[in-house]
Amino acid sequence: MYRDHNCGELRESDIDTSVTLSGWVQKVRDKGFVTWVDIRDRYGITQLVFDEDRTSSKLIAQARDLGREYVIQITGTVIERASKNPKIPTGNIEVLVKELSVLNESKTPPFTIENETDGGEDLRMKYRYLDIRRNPVKNNLIFRSKVTMEVRKYLSEHGFIEVETPYLIKSTPEGARDFVVPSRMNEGQFYALPQSPQTFKQLLMVGGMDKYFQIVKCFRDEDLRADRQPEFTQIDCEMAFVEQEDILIAFEGLTKYLLKEINGIEIDTFPRITFDQAMKRFGNDKPDIRFGMEFGELNAVAQHKEFNVFNSADLVVGIAIPGGATYTRKEIDALVDWVRRPQVGAKGMVYVKCNEDGSFKSSVDKFYDQEDLAQWAEITGAKPGDLICVLSGDANTTRTQLSALRMEMAQRLGLRNPKEFAPLWVIDFPLLELDEETGNYHAMHHPFTSPKPGQMELLETDPGAVRANAYDLVLNGNEIGGGSIRIHDKDMQSTMFKHLGFTPEEAKAQFGFLMDAFQYGAPPHGGIAFGLDRLVSILGGQETIRDFIAFPKNNSGRDVMIDAPAPIDEGQLKELHLVLDIKS
Amino acid sequence: MYRDHNCGELRESDIDTSVTLSGWVQKVRDKGFVTWVDIRDRYGITQLVFDEDRTSSKLIAQARDLGREYVIQITGTVIERASKNPKIPTGNIEVLVKELSVLNESKTPPFTIENETDGGEDLRMKYRYLDIRRNPVKNNLIFRSKVTMEVRKYLSEHGFIEVETPYLIKSTPEGARDFVVPSRMNEGQFYALPQSPQTFKQLLMVGGMDKYFQIVKCFRDEDLRADRQPEFTQIDCEMAFVEQEDILIAFEGLTKYLLKEINGIEIDTFPRITFDQAMKRFGNDKPDIRFGMEFGELNAVAQHKEFNVFNSADLVVGIAIPGGATYTRKEIDALVDWVRRPQVGAKGMVYVKCNEDGSFKSSVDKFYDQEDLAQWAEITGAKPGDLICVLSGDANTTRTQLSALRMEMAQRLGLRNPKEFAPLWVIDFPLLELDEETGNYHAMHHPFTSPKPGQMELLETDPGAVRANAYDLVLNGNEIGGGSIRIHDKDMQSTMFKHLGFTPEEAKAQFGFLMDAFQYGAPPHGGIAFGLDRLVSILGGQETIRDFIAFPKNNSGRDVMIDAPAPIDEGQLKELHLVLDIKS
Repeated sequence: MYRDHNCGELRESDIDTSVTLSGWVQKVRDKGFVTWVDIRDRYGITQLVFDEDRTSSKLIAQARDLGREYVIQITGTVIERASKNPKIPTGNIEVLVKELSVLNESKTPPFTIENETDGGEDLRMKYRYLDIRRNPVKNNLIFRSKVTMEVRKYLSEHGFIEVETPYLIKSTPEGARDFVVPSRMNEGQFYALPQSPQTFKQLLMVGGMDKYFQIVKCFRDEDLRADRQPEFTQIDCEMAFVEQEDILIAFEGLTKYLLKEINGIEIDTFPRITFDQAMKRFGNDKPDIRFGMEFGELNAVAQHKEFNVFNSADLVVGIAIPGGATYTRKEIDALVDWVRRPQVGAKGMVYVKCNEDGSFKSSVDKFYDQEDLAQWAEITGAKPGDLICVLSGDANTTRTQLSALRMEMAQRLGLRNPKEFAPLWVIDFPLLELDEETGNYHAMHHPFTSPKPGQMELLETDPGAVRANAYDLVLNGNEIGGGSIRIHDKDMQSTMFKHLGFTPEEAKAQFGFLMDAFQYGAPPHGGIAFGLDRLVSILGGQETIRDFIAFPKNNSGRDVMIDAPAPIDEGQLKELHLVLDIKS
Repeated sequence: MYRDHNCGELRESDIDTSVTLSGWVQKVRDKGFVTWVDIRDRYGITQLVFDEDRTSSKLIAQARDLGREYVIQITGTVIERASKNPKIPTGNIEVLVKELSVLNESKTPPFTIENETDGGEDLRMKYRYLDIRRNPVKNNLIFRSKVTMEVRKYLSEHGFIEVETPYLIKSTPEGARDFVVPSRMNEGQFYALPQSPQTFKQLLMVGGMDKYFQIVKCFRDEDLRADRQPEFTQIDCEMAFVEQEDILIAFEGLTKYLLKEINGIEIDTFPRITFDQAMKRFGNDKPDIRFGMEFGELNAVAQHKEFNVFNSADLVVGIAIPGGATYTRKEIDALVDWVRRPQVGAKGMVYVKCNEDGSFKSSVDKFYDQEDLAQWAEITGAKPGDLICVLSGDANTTRTQLSALRMEMAQRLGLRNPKEFAPLWVIDFPLLELDEETGNYHAMHHPFTSPKPGQMELLETDPGAVRANAYDLVLNGNEIGGGSIRIHDKDMQSTMFKHLGFTPEEAKAQFGFLMDAFQYGAPPHGGIAFGLDRLVSILGGQETIRDFIAFPKNNSGRDVMIDAPAPIDEGQLKELHLVLDIKS
């Protein structure tokens, strides 16, 4: 037996007990007459003591030779600590060591195994197994495990069956790029890794499983942006015989449960907002509603004056920044520069200081009088002491720019408190999205999403106006889940494929099995999928999903620890009926 | 709302309630004055009634038009059934229908959706979504979900953390063939899909996670035998600071828990047997101990007589078949033919009838007297009325052949009762296995398995004799789990790679990250992995793992429902820097 207790559990009630512990050397402190060693494992840290009065000199010498991260096993007696450490649970005791053996030595780690480490991101990724020893990473992984257990518990108790769907499936040209897997036994053919189990969960509904879920890895071969992984985990769910309302209720229930169990926060009914309203009020289809600063549209009161910038704009829209009236000229100039950065892209910014005395001072005083500006303040909800920032131009672009400013100012003002949780349903998404480059429409959610009742006709005349039975669950400005009521009628699905530019042959080749299935009694159904990596990081009050993934990949899709991907040998390629096509 | 009750929950206490149900039409029975429709969902079947007295003629006509597997929604009143059906939980009531709507029609299914179907395997695989509607398949999937929930519950309660390890890893030439995934962003390079998360779970132990588990898909590109899938699911576990005994205790606990919770069976301490003993007593490293028929080695009593077949044999070994003394000459000849089939491969079989009167009649009476045969009976444990079957030849081959006969006879005698559970630990496996073709040794378990203490030296002199800290958990003649205590010392791991024929460069290229990790304080660790598909099928009292997989692949690794794998387009290949190399 390597241990009979772990390094986090000994207390004053254990005093005089003989114990055996195993763990890592966190620290050795040698004061001459006495040597302390902190021993660490997943559960905590316990102080070991060696002193000249009570410990053999051989053992003391052994203790002094221990290096950081050595793996040791000790046996000793629990004693009361002279100088107690109230900061750790084992702080009232220490173990007077009788026997010590080194189970494994350690080279000096490339970075310190402390809560605050001196290791940079790259080094920590290469030695991820050492990074995981650090409490912040270790605790995140334990947190993730806890969240998934709670998700499974809730869904099981609510009648959902976890069904494993296959990983080796078929590539579809629609949507993001697939990772593919060459088949050795089927020459010239490939499997694809699933971007989601979408069609399989729909087939499970056709199969009468009624309520399905799965916590499942999904794969997308996309150019990686910061904090996006080629493999990611989804909580994938589907229900039969449901309308949108049933889904919203079911998964609002799950989310409330998690917030309660994990974060100890009780939230009443989640607010709902349509996609159109979200864009109008927040410039964003995943608004962060932990704070206000809602958009005020100023066209009616700011146009038709002498100010041509506004007169020629599609949209004039502003937000009120709390307390911003005290900004100096320099600070405001910096703000103007900020919105003009290429990442935001505004041409300029008009501002209005709402002075405490009720007067206004703006950058466009030449064109607008106090009465005009009072209207702006009313529309943007600005109070004395606030600063109104106004952008103008094309509606969509301007909203996106002002949304960026709103988020930035909330960040600066500390309004994005990670311990506060503001969920929101965004509903009535457009069914189709115009691809500006090709002029074609493609599915905003996916090709299986149903339009709102009675809107099929609009598909012919005004495809962009068709609204879908599609919804997103937004938490603190992040889309944590999204789903839709699906099409369950073969003819409607065929029509949809046609509108998405599939020929009947293409539709049959790719999704024939699904349309076949719809001929044999497909029930109405719908579902949702949550991005687990994101959900866990938000519930954990952090920003970076990578911190909640045991072995993440870097922005080039590489695992720098194991050095993958890597070349494979000629024999493997030959068996797979492939040759490399590399520019030399 | 599509329903306010499901089709399995209405009882007499619901009589007079108005209810809305949705589901599939199981059956329509029309008796002229009254029409019954059975409506089915995941939860059960409810009888709907339409009769001339109480139902509008329009509604009756509608009901008569319903086809099998139509999806319908009805509203009606729960009434007492005239002729009750005690076989189903809803059998005391029926619903008098007031409103009926067809949610979706159905073509006639290609096979009947009944517990006993007329559909062949191929057809049921192509229309798997219809097969899943059948109770036996549906219940298996629900059963699987339940088993995995219980596994997670037990392991979580015992301090194991579920950690997701990556699916896009690196190919290793060792062991079975990898499925590989070409990288678009890293030209000419490939990820591999994991055959198991072995190295990652070991790194998690180096990382101090202490107790890890994961229910995870694994992939092997092997030529498929019956009932083997290219993707399969493992319950993967690892613990730090453990010896073999700790692992056996921990996972005996899990297995007992499952047998109790799932099957209602309590089993005391699991027996243990060494690999050598298992081979000697059962001719098999995964013996089915639900029944006896242990091997009796007869060399000492059967050799050195006049019978040259035995004299020239390495091993003479027999089993006693209960009640076999009554077999006719024809039946015994058939048995001899059975052991001579190429699948078994014995050259012949000697038999001894143990007559009820205590006398013996054998096929080798010319060479052995009654006293000799009495010794055979004693050694094989044969009782009056039994038949002793004796095979001889090379030891390994003969044991394998006799094991096949033992299993076959147990099957014929009904001794392999799927409701009985006989778990067994097989321990002390050989570390290495001789590859007869190449004359090289390779790791029997995997290259990370540690030899038993003090046996490293034997590696030089007698590699085949080295025993490992490796163990299998066997249930009813199936290996349901296997694992080992791992090497955690860099030098020992290097030595092991050397003995397995890796050059230092190859070892570094493939497993450098692991050996690096072992330099930074790797704790002693070990683990186990259970084959979930097999475990679930055995607990479910069935033979075929395919019946417990929602969407299995066929023996050519194809998903015949979605028709995968499939060709991909030229553009995709080009992006992946590949061209096909196909013989035309």
